[in-house]
Order: sequence, then structure tokens, then C-alpha cells
Amino acid sequence: MRKTPNGERLERMRRAMEAARLDALVVRLPENVLLLSGFWPMIGASTLVFPLGEKPVCVIPHCYEEEANASLWDVDAVYFRYGVLDAPDPRLAMPELLSKIAQNRSWRRVGYEGSFETVAPSWNAAESLVPASQTLALLGKVFGRTAELVDLTSLLEAERSRKTPYEAERLRLASEISSFGLKAFAEAVGVGKSGVELAAAVEESVMVAGTGHKGASRVRAFAQVATGAEEGAVGYRPNEVSTARRLVAGDLALLELGVVVDGYWADRTRVRVAGSPSQHQRELWEIVERAQRAGVAAMKPGARAYEVDRAARKIIADAGFFKFFPHITGHGLGFRYHESGPILSPDSQEVLEEGMLTSVEPGLYDRSFGGIRLEDDVLVTASGAEVLGPFPMELA
Amino acid sequence: MRKTPNGERLERMRRAMEAARLDALVVRLPENVLLLSGFWPMIGASTLVFPLGEKPVCVIPHCYEEEANASLWDVDAVYFRYGVLDAPDPRLAMPELLSKIAQNRSWRRVGYEGSFETVAPSWNAAESLVPASQTLALLGKVFGRTAELVDLTSLLEAERSRKTPYEAERLRLASEISSFGLKAFAEAVGVGKSGVELAAAVEESVMVAGTGHKGASRVRAFAQVATGAEEGAVGYRPNEVSTARRLVAGDLALLELGVVVDGYWADRTRVRVAGSPSQHQRELWEIVERAQRAGVAAMKPGARAYEVDRAARKIIADAGFFKFFPHITGHGLGFRYHESGPILSPDSQEVLEEGMLTSVEPGLYDRSFGGIRLEDDVLVTASGAEVLGPFPMELA
Repeated sequence: MRKTPNGERLERMRRAMEAARLDALVVRLPENVLLLSGFWPMIGASTLVFPLGEKPVCVIPHCYEEEANASLWDVDAVYFRYGVLDAPDPRLAMPELLSKIAQNRSWRRVGYEGSFETVAPSWNAAESLVPASQTLALLGKVFGRTAELVDLTSLLEAERSRKTPYEAERLRLASEISSFGLKAFAEAVGVGKSGVELAAAVEESVMVAGTGHKGASRVRAFAQVATGAEEGAVGYRPNEVSTARRLVAGDLALLELGVVVDGYWADRTRVRVAGSPSQHQRELWEIVERAQRAGVAAMKPGARAYEVDRAARKIIADAGFFKFFPHITGHGLGFRYHESGPILSPDSQEVLEEGMLTSVEPGLYDRSFGGIRLEDDVLVTASGAEVLGPFPMELA
Repeated sequence: MRKTPNGERLERMRRAMEAARLDALVVRLPENVLLLSGFWPMIGASTLVFPLGEKPVCVIPHCYEEEANASLWDVDAVYFRYGVLDAPDPRLAMPELLSKIAQNRSWRRVGYEGSFETVAPSWNAAESLVPASQTLALLGKVFGRTAELVDLTSLLEAERSRKTPYEAERLRLASEISSFGLKAFAEAVGVGKSGVELAAAVEESVMVAGTGHKGASRVRAFAQVATGAEEGAVGYRPNEVSTARRLVAGDLALLELGVVVDGYWADRTRVRVAGSPSQHQRELWEIVERAQRAGVAAMKPGARAYEVDRAARKIIADAGFFKFFPHITGHGLGFRYHESGPILSPDSQEVLEEGMLTSVEPGLYDRSFGGIRLEDDVLVTASGAEVLGPFPMELA
């Protein structure tokens, strides 16, 4: 445990709580425990109580004491035995521990995660522990007799959309580590390689080169590689499928890459050709590259989200490819692969502020040529924008 | 779409619904959509309506039509535009589509997923879409005027604990593919290798060799490798951390491996030594191996879960290592990495039935020697038990 290096976050959260007349927050989603305590839970069984004027308390399975100690800020940790034979039933242990924390406090409004329908995994990406009816009943039992329970989902989403300098630094590291995957992709694409081979090479590179890099501890990549025109044409979808299909000369390979580094996310896309690109491929690729750069150039404090989308979309429309760019230009991210805001869509009136982070990812998709998308994560700075973890965009 | 190859599941579910007087189920968690429709959702945005006496209807994002068509059983598919600029707001589109399905039906009790606090990821393991308050409000709006909403979590959990022959076959394939990872581990362990390198090699092998194997389409591995005594000693935890630490001669490497194949899960563990094992390591390892085999041998219809645990634990206790085996002997799995039942714990009175599937995974942990656990997935058959995807257990 140490003094928080992210004081701005805690101050801002407390101001938001005052404005919403909240006396305390109780969060269990790993993304929100991380946000307010510095600890990214291992399996999602940790609960953080964050009171307005007191030190937060985090209730954590005993077996993760080492990880929690290494990352918790100025937070009291309470450990309960978990996952071993002599552990109490967590359905009984948790309300008991929370009741102990709540007693002698006169909280009247307590915030909880009522409406998170999109959730990041904990470190254990193979299984998420999420709050459902049991958790709501538990919170009602512990806090509901004396306090009103308030869904704080939109408050947290709004606060999370603006990153503090500390968070920006963590996200810079995540993007930097994701670039190890972009590099592996650039080196590995070639005739004869399959989509799953390329995806695996990218994931390996991120995990092996990223773990330990500048103190990164828990690093994992989720890569998908579409090969050829047919797979690439549906590359606009929210999630892809890598297949065993092998690249033939002239095929495009489209990499969609999500990377998590100690709870902070990066989201990148690159496209490479196997062998030499055709003139047509080069032209299409350059349109997307120009659109991507135009989007980045439009990111600055005070700009409206639709203006960024328009800047990118105009390049594509002017080139005559409007209908091949079916999706938004970007989305917020940071504590998740995709956050709720800001959204860079044609009709979003959101005003960009310093500290906001979005992907900028225009793309073109058609069965005639496949999928071409270029994506970086872009932070709004005081004077403009910064591409995190910069890595070259090259077709070949 | 095709006739269901898993008729037993649908018949059993309909019998359970009759017993619970449920007219229809509405499920959105990928694990339950897969259970009742054959389709494993890509990102979790698909909703299945499963009526008692009619054909089910699955509401699916349009961009996943190909994947859905390739796997849906005898289910009507309704597609809605999603993730593209001209898509309607899903918060409006979904209630409208569900209302259309519900109209002219006189359902009086409708089941929903109220209490799943542990959830499997969809194919996109980097982000889960889960039902929270918005979904409950939506269901209330669509069905709640005329029908009572009933939490069917425990009903689904109970049904899921017994696999049909079709599901057993899919799980056999998942375990078989997980063995590709065990093989890669056996080949890769050696002096100088790091935990993250070994984990990445295992994951790569599963994804590359598994994709396309006997028709497997979406394959992903989640591997964690503890190296040496200090890391291995906490290898009993629900989730591990692979590090950049490198194996030195005589170190143990402990692999914990989760694998998903088109929505069906395998959970395996192996331990190897870098270089030659000491006599002490060999003795400890053989105790665990005997305990694991004793557990498997005790699995049969009619046995109580605690008897399986006792069979494994007795070997370890008799050898004088009782206190080094702090966890249960096994847990259910199949539609998740860990299912709610059966649980092979010292006090579980659950009666094993044909079709139940559990891990059998005794282990020893201490800072003096590290962690030794051996784990296979074991299916209760008519006459005994079957280890799925068998792969040798070898220390060196």
C-alpha cells in the first residue's frame, strides 16, 4: 500500500459524489475496483467500498494478498479466506464483512453498479464474476435498511471518459506494449501463413515481450486476423474469427488487436499484404491512412465528436468510397476494450475534453477487395492529440 | 439451420419447464444460448426465446448471420442490424423484436437469467455483454405486463450439470484439443524457459492445431504457468500469473490450462520438471498422480461427490501430506470453465449421475517444493467414468 499516485481521480470522484449526494460507493467490477483503488482484481471476487470522506476499504480473497499489496493505493485491505477448504461461504462472508464496514456510518445514499451490461474481464479472462440479483440482494441487506441504493453506472461512465495524467501514462504503456504485437504482425505476414498462426504470433509477442516491460505484470492479447477478401469484407464486425486459411500472394491480412496491461486496454488495427500490393490495394490503403490521420488531426479539446468522424469520413467520401465505410470512426476505451464514451459517430454532439481517449479507426470493406482498417488510440491533450504507443502504418 | 442433433437436451429442458410451470425462457448469456440453440454467440448480443411447445427464436446481430446459420439447430433466426451506422439503437430494437415474438402468445410465466454471477465469455473473451438492470427492465416491459418473470438460474444450473451424449462429444473434442497444449508444454519445458514463454507456446499450439481440427471453428486457450517453488506454492489459487522468471535446473513448472472450443470448455493441469527430477519431487508427484487416479476410479453413477474427494484425499493424507492439499478435488465444467456443480468437496452429498462432468485435480503446495497438481476432465458414464482427451501424466 502506498499514497495514491492518482489523486486527481479520487478528488474528481469525490466531487462527483458530492454533486450526486452519494455518501459511499460499492463496486465489484474489476474495471471499477481498479479505477478507484489501483488494484486490478484477479478473478472479480474483490469488493471496494469507497466512502466520501474516509479511506476506502477493499475486501479481497486472501490468496491475492501479494498482488493487492503491490498495487493498492491508500486503501485499507480486508482479506477473507477464499477457494480453500476452510473458507467460509462467500455468500455469508461478504455481507458480514461489508456490514462491519458499514456499521457506525450513517450513509444515506450508497452507489452501486446497477447497469453495467458491458464488462471487462478480470485477469482471468476465461470467466467473469459479475454482480447480478444476489449482489443486489446482498447490498440491500447490508446498506438498504438505512440508505438508499443508487445506480451509479452513468456517473462512473462519465468520470471514466476523462483520463487523469496517471491513467494516461498507464494507457500509454498498454499501447506501447500492443505495438510489440503490431511489430510481430508486420514481421510474420507472408504467403502461406494462416490467420490463426498470425494471431497466435501476435499474442505470444505481446505476452512475452510485454510481461516485465516497464513494470508491466499481467499482460494478455486478444488478436484476430482476417485473411483474404472474403474474411476481410466482414472485418467491420465487433469481433472477428481467425481461421486456418492460408495467405496467398496478394492477399490482405487484417489484424484486430485488443491488449490488456494490468487492467488498462489498447485497441489497434493494422493491415498488411502478403507479397506485393497491387496498385488498387495501395490506393485504397492510402485513402484509409489519410482518413485515419485526418481523424487524429481533428482531435482536440473543444472539438465535437461528429467533427472528428466527419474529418475522417470526408476523405473516404471524396474518394468515392462512402458506402464502404459502414461503422463509426472511433470509441472511447481505457478501463475496457470499449468504453461507453466518447463515441466518434456522425451525429455525436459530445465535446472532446483533455484526457479523453478514443480509437480512431476508419475502414473500407467489400468483397471485391476485403477489409482495410487502420486504428490507433488517441488521447486528447491540452493543445491537440497524442497517438499512444505510436507504430508505423505500412501496407508492405 | 438443421434438425437438432441434441434432442435430449431440448426434451429435458421442456420437461423441466413443465415441472416449473414455465411457458418460455429468455436467455442472453452465451453459455445458455449455446445450450438451447447450438449457436455460441460472438459477442453476447444475441437473445434466445425458448417457448415450451414451439420452435425457439434467436435474435442475432445481422453481421453474425453466417456463424449463426452454420450452427443453429431447429431455431428461427431473426436478425437486427448492429454495429453499423444505419443500425437502430439496440435498446429500442431488442424490446421491439421481443415484443413481436411475444405478441399473441399467452405466456404466464417466463424464465430469465437473474442470478448468474459467474459467466463465461462469448467468443470475444476481452469483453462480456451481461444482463443487468437494463435487461431486467426490458424483460419487464416486454413480458411483465402479462407474465410473471421467474429467475431460472438454478434450474439451468441443475440441467447443465448433466451432459447429453451430444454435449459429451463436444466436450470430448474440447479436451482432445486441450491435449495439444499439454503436448506443447511437455515439449517446451526446459532450463531457461520463462513462464510467459511456456504459456504462450501452449496457447499458440491449442489455437493453431485446434482450429479446424474435426470441424472446430473458434478455439482459444488461457494458460498460466508457475515456475519454481515460490510461484508454485500459490498455484492452488483460482487464477495464476505467469511471469518472466526463467526455469533453472530442477525447477517445477505448473501449467493451468483453460480451453474453449466453440463454447465448450476443458480444464487441465500438468507439472513438468526442468532437467531431472529429484527423488523427493518424484515421490511427491507420484502421490498426486495416485490421488488423481484414485479420484477418477471413484467416479461412477450413484457415488456421492464426497466419496470421490475422499478417495483422492486419502492417498495424500496417508502419505502424510494432508495439510498441503487445501482445495476441493474437483468442480463441474462444460458450458463454463467452472460450472456450479457438481462440486467434489469433502462434505458434498451430491449423487453423481451419468453425464456429469467434473475436473479431478488433487494437488500439493508448499514453499519448500512448490506446486504439484494433476487435472483431467472426467465424465460419469453408465458404468464408471471416462477421462476426456486423455494425455499422459509425466513429470519428466
